[in-house]
Amino acid sequence: MKPPHVRINRQQLESFCAAIFETAGLSHPDAVVAAQVLVAADARGIPSHGVARLWRYVNGLTNGVMVPDAQIQVLMDTPTSIVLNANGAMGAPVSARAMSTVIDKARVAGTAFGCVRDSNHFGIAGYYAMMAMEHDMIGIAMTNTAALGVPTFGRQVMFGTNPIAFAAPAEKERGFVLDMATTVVTRGKIEVYDRLGKELPAGWAVDKTGRPATDARAILDDMFVRAGGGIMPLGGPGELSSGHKGFGLAILVDILCAALCGAPFGPEVADTETSSGRVSHFFGAIRVDTFRDPKAFRQDMDRMLHSLRTSPPAENADRVYYAGLKEFEHESQSEQLGVPILAKTFDEISAIGHEWGIDAPPTIAS
Amino acid sequence: MKPPHVRINRQQLESFCAAIFETAGLSHPDAVVAAQVLVAADARGIPSHGVARLWRYVNGLTNGVMVPDAQIQVLMDTPTSIVLNANGAMGAPVSARAMSTVIDKARVAGTAFGCVRDSNHFGIAGYYAMMAMEHDMIGIAMTNTAALGVPTFGRQVMFGTNPIAFAAPAEKERGFVLDMATTVVTRGKIEVYDRLGKELPAGWAVDKTGRPATDARAILDDMFVRAGGGIMPLGGPGELSSGHKGFGLAILVDILCAALCGAPFGPEVADTETSSGRVSHFFGAIRVDTFRDPKAFRQDMDRMLHSLRTSPPAENADRVYYAGLKEFEHESQSEQLGVPILAKTFDEISAIGHEWGIDAPPTIAS
Repeated sequence: MKPPHVRINRQQLESFCAAIFETAGLSHPDAVVAAQVLVAADARGIPSHGVARLWRYVNGLTNGVMVPDAQIQVLMDTPTSIVLNANGAMGAPVSARAMSTVIDKARVAGTAFGCVRDSNHFGIAGYYAMMAMEHDMIGIAMTNTAALGVPTFGRQVMFGTNPIAFAAPAEKERGFVLDMATTVVTRGKIEVYDRLGKELPAGWAVDKTGRPATDARAILDDMFVRAGGGIMPLGGPGELSSGHKGFGLAILVDILCAALCGAPFGPEVADTETSSGRVSHFFGAIRVDTFRDPKAFRQDMDRMLHSLRTSPPAENADRVYYAGLKEFEHESQSEQLGVPILAKTFDEISAIGHEWGIDAPPTIAS
Repeated sequence: MKPPHVRINRQQLESFCAAIFETAGLSHPDAVVAAQVLVAADARGIPSHGVARLWRYVNGLTNGVMVPDAQIQVLMDTPTSIVLNANGAMGAPVSARAMSTVIDKARVAGTAFGCVRDSNHFGIAGYYAMMAMEHDMIGIAMTNTAALGVPTFGRQVMFGTNPIAFAAPAEKERGFVLDMATTVVTRGKIEVYDRLGKELPAGWAVDKTGRPATDARAILDDMFVRAGGGIMPLGGPGELSSGHKGFGLAILVDILCAALCGAPFGPEVADTETSSGRVSHFFGAIRVDTFRDPKAFRQDMDRMLHSLRTSPPAENADRVYYAGLKEFEHESQSEQLGVPILAKTFDEISAIGHEWGIDAPPTIAS
């Protein structure tokens, strides 16, 4: 059974979140961006990164975990690179600014990259990668996160979920948008199994001895006190199903986000609800026309993406989806019918609004 | 029981392979590079990509699958990009040339990328990514390959093993070198299980209906005639263990290697022993000093890599390895004791040498 949800006009939901962020101390432009990134997650069907997190951001902005008026420092600035120190700012506004700068630099140089250090949770990585698409660029975004992943053959957490996002435009198709944690799953999925009292699927996690384990509660408890154990890299435990590849990808992300700009990495990154993990991000843009005519590229992308989504499905499946397709379809529905929000989440954000004197947006009658 | 092997001095093995390549029609410089890439695989403990493939390259160069004196065309040349048409050349020499060009461009511009289209098998992707390390750059190399991977929820092959290589230098540690197929395994692993008559581990492959399958022989037969079925993307079947992420990474590689330069992609890429798949490659280099002092970066890399390899192992494991560590240790041993080659492979390459009038290199008494 699908839990009850309401639908809200996207712009109205954004305005509501922006008003709250502004009241919590963000500048108006930063508040607008932060709201757009947050609502984009719900609109695209990724509610784990949507307005359900509003309270965390508001708490963070008011209790000092995030600095609402942080001075963003430029640590390095070349024709193809930018390094920003966010000095504890909220993640989304400084990330959107960094990605815009990277796109501007790529417009001139052909390609560019940027790092943001001492930042906070930036929402969905795909948002920033997608910013490049309308400029006929390939977009890249990554972030390290609080450590919860255990290396192949290890038993202590040494890296975060460290997502990689990659976006490439198409012509008639909506475009390719990969946005993936480099661990098998995120902590949120383990928590869902814990709440349901279900055993974890094999290959998701190891216990404090480093052996594959399925008891969600015990794993979360041990992770909380850093006793050992945690989530597996993409590919699962050991090398048989290539868990060492996911481990490698997670470290690749830590190198680009953190080592490249001198920021904390690995288990040093440990945010909680009362202290900032000071995560770091990495952004990139590659101008398609430095390789070929962008229109021809987009047409080839159409051909590729169309062939994937019309590829014959397995006998026990309905469809083949390329990366981003489900999210684009969800977004179209959100535009048409309103952004779906869990009724419980709507009550929560309405209560936040009430506390700050901001009216909750109207729900759309279904 | 370890199968019998011999050891050969690395330089002597390279000279032998180079002499064969030159006799088969490559220019002297191209022959030397091709031999270096081939022998590097054996030296680093990746014999699947080493001199065991010598006969395939020699056959390819003599039967027209690879064009020994192909004219390499420059299709695009900007300060941050290069696109080469290999016109059916052997993969390694044109790839080394492309990566060198990318490094030269990055030295000036800060970062650069390159595509090579209409090429052939280029050996280990890591070789090219590692070329960047000595220049204090991060190196990237990818290639698409003959299609053998089945999309999440699909049942027909739509992409290759599409490896991603990424290399970053360190100071005292040997550096981070990720070189990974984006499928769970390569075809070679399936063939090994077939030869041993063993069932495949769960999660490696699906049959022609798209359902998980473990019969190596049936899967290889169906793949051979393209009846359906094939190898799973990293993460395995379905979405439960995030196979859709590996699928996304495989397509990312096809976009950068092929769509970006107008080359064949997906199931269009189908090389056999008698026809070229005309694969495409992608290379990149990012100058570390456009982000921070390279020495400080290398020292942070040391700290990261040291912490990973000294991270406590699982109770049922001996050590934690970061990407590239096993290969560097194997390479040190190869330098010291000689490059290990299966006795059977040594007989094969000696026979090729005999046919072409080139003396096999001496084996090292152990």
